[in-house]
Amino acid sequence: MALSIAGAGRNALTEKAAWFSESLARGLKVARAFDRDQPKMRISEVAAKTGMTRASARRYLLTLKSLGYVGSENEWFYPLPRILELGYAFVSSARLEEFVEPILQRLSEATDAAAHFAVFDNNETLCLGSVFSQKLFGFFISIGARQPAYAGSMGKVLLAGLSDTKLEEYLASVRRVAHTKETVTSAAILRREITEVREQGYALNRGEMTPGIVGVAVPVRNKDGTVASVVNANWISTSSIKAAEIKRCLGPLREAAKQIEMRLASGAVPTGWVSRER
Amino acid sequence: MALSIAGAGRNALTEKAAWFSESLARGLKVARAFDRDQPKMRISEVAAKTGMTRASARRYLLTLKSLGYVGSENEWFYPLPRILELGYAFVSSARLEEFVEPILQRLSEATDAAAHFAVFDNNETLCLGSVFSQKLFGFFISIGARQPAYAGSMGKVLLAGLSDTKLEEYLASVRRVAHTKETVTSAAILRREITEVREQGYALNRGEMTPGIVGVAVPVRNKDGTVASVVNANWISTSSIKAAEIKRCLGPLREAAKQIEMRLASGAVPTGWVSRER
Repeated sequence: MALSIAGAGRNALTEKAAWFSESLARGLKVARAFDRDQPKMRISEVAAKTGMTRASARRYLLTLKSLGYVGSENEWFYPLPRILELGYAFVSSARLEEFVEPILQRLSEATDAAAHFAVFDNNETLCLGSVFSQKLFGFFISIGARQPAYAGSMGKVLLAGLSDTKLEEYLASVRRVAHTKETVTSAAILRREITEVREQGYALNRGEMTPGIVGVAVPVRNKDGTVASVVNANWISTSSIKAAEIKRCLGPLREAAKQIEMRLASGAVPTGWVSRER
Repeated sequence: MALSIAGAGRNALTEKAAWFSESLARGLKVARAFDRDQPKMRISEVAAKTGMTRASARRYLLTLKSLGYVGSENEWFYPLPRILELGYAFVSSARLEEFVEPILQRLSEATDAAAHFAVFDNNETLCLGSVFSQKLFGFFISIGARQPAYAGSMGKVLLAGLSDTKLEEYLASVRRVAHTKETVTSAAILRREITEVREQGYALNRGEMTPGIVGVAVPVRNKDGTVASVVNANWISTSSIKAAEIKRCLGPLREAAKQIEMRLASGAVPTGWVSRER
């Protein structure tokens, strides 16, 4: 393995160097280094987090600052609102707010739950649309948020849409952490649950990511039947999810999925949303 | 003026070159070139739009593609959902969904209107929070969306928060387009309206950006009284906005502004949100 990388890698790297901008890649790595746990960082922390030298980290931070994407105060750097314009290229070009928000709004009203739309990206559930429920105050996944696919109703639908090979690759490569006492971390149990999801056509979240948040999700399919994305409804519950609640949600969820499928099939959004990681 | 740029500019450029990454700046320019009007582009179109050579545009597109931010099909390139992770650095580090969404949710319920939170960035109104109304289906400004500051209630509050010098710079430099027959493009009328906004403490939108969408906005202030950001409530209306409607909205709007002010003052979000363009 190490040998083949050393052999094939050298040529690939030489070829890649001809068009690949290392500076762009490293600058973007610095831009996304800020997160909930480290909303502001010093140069040395950015360097440590990105695996760069202090001089490199400083160069990209100062460039991002000069472009208005990052601000600084004393020795601290932090992202500025303007950085949203990068992600907004996607939101705007996909017309996300016209495309998916009204459908989620109706789903939320029909279920009295928060409604979300997500895709599988980089082995995670990436939220592309969310609508608050008037009845629910505690929970909201914002656009752009990522969650581990093994913990949550949307992730399990997306995993169920993978081929068996890709699913095994996922289970072998993704470290699973117990976020709550309900989180399933065992590969064997997840495999069994995903088989169930494929058979029944929906997945449940029993508080696996956040204590007391439960939900139901159904797949959104491409014309060829592959799973393109997912919609869910979730709500706060102190007890385990009931059969009657699942049944009540499935109609509105399938209606929302059907509406999104029709929009996808009509070419309403750019193609290529479907992860090629299957 | 031209002389002073030529004189001072050369040294400044030489100094800047020592730390500024031109590749990062140009790559980011390519990333944000996609928008509603051009959701997918060929290399030649990206080159034309960004003012780069075809070879440069190709290099940055291929780098962005290799990082998973851009997809391609035949000769077309388009942004992929993963690009959201760049903007999400800000959403996540500012804890936007915890910080502002619940406050907007209560504002929306109290007014039966859509509720938004925005800052002034790059001479535009940049939306940082939005909540749909159950009563309103037609309109929603998504997080990251930008609107011209001269056309809309939020923009006029933000302009009213500028110093007179900065306001004049804004009026002199920003080209004003009539989006609807209500849009105010005259500098003299805008100046008068902004003086009114300063006196009355709120601004109105009379369908100036989108026909039939009206709204009211009030400022959110820093501890020193400067305008940091803005909240609004807007709704669909076939008639002009009524005094009773304004009055009904002002209480909930001021309550929402006060809550956000308290959170800002407590250091709940990184500093530096306030535009330094005043």
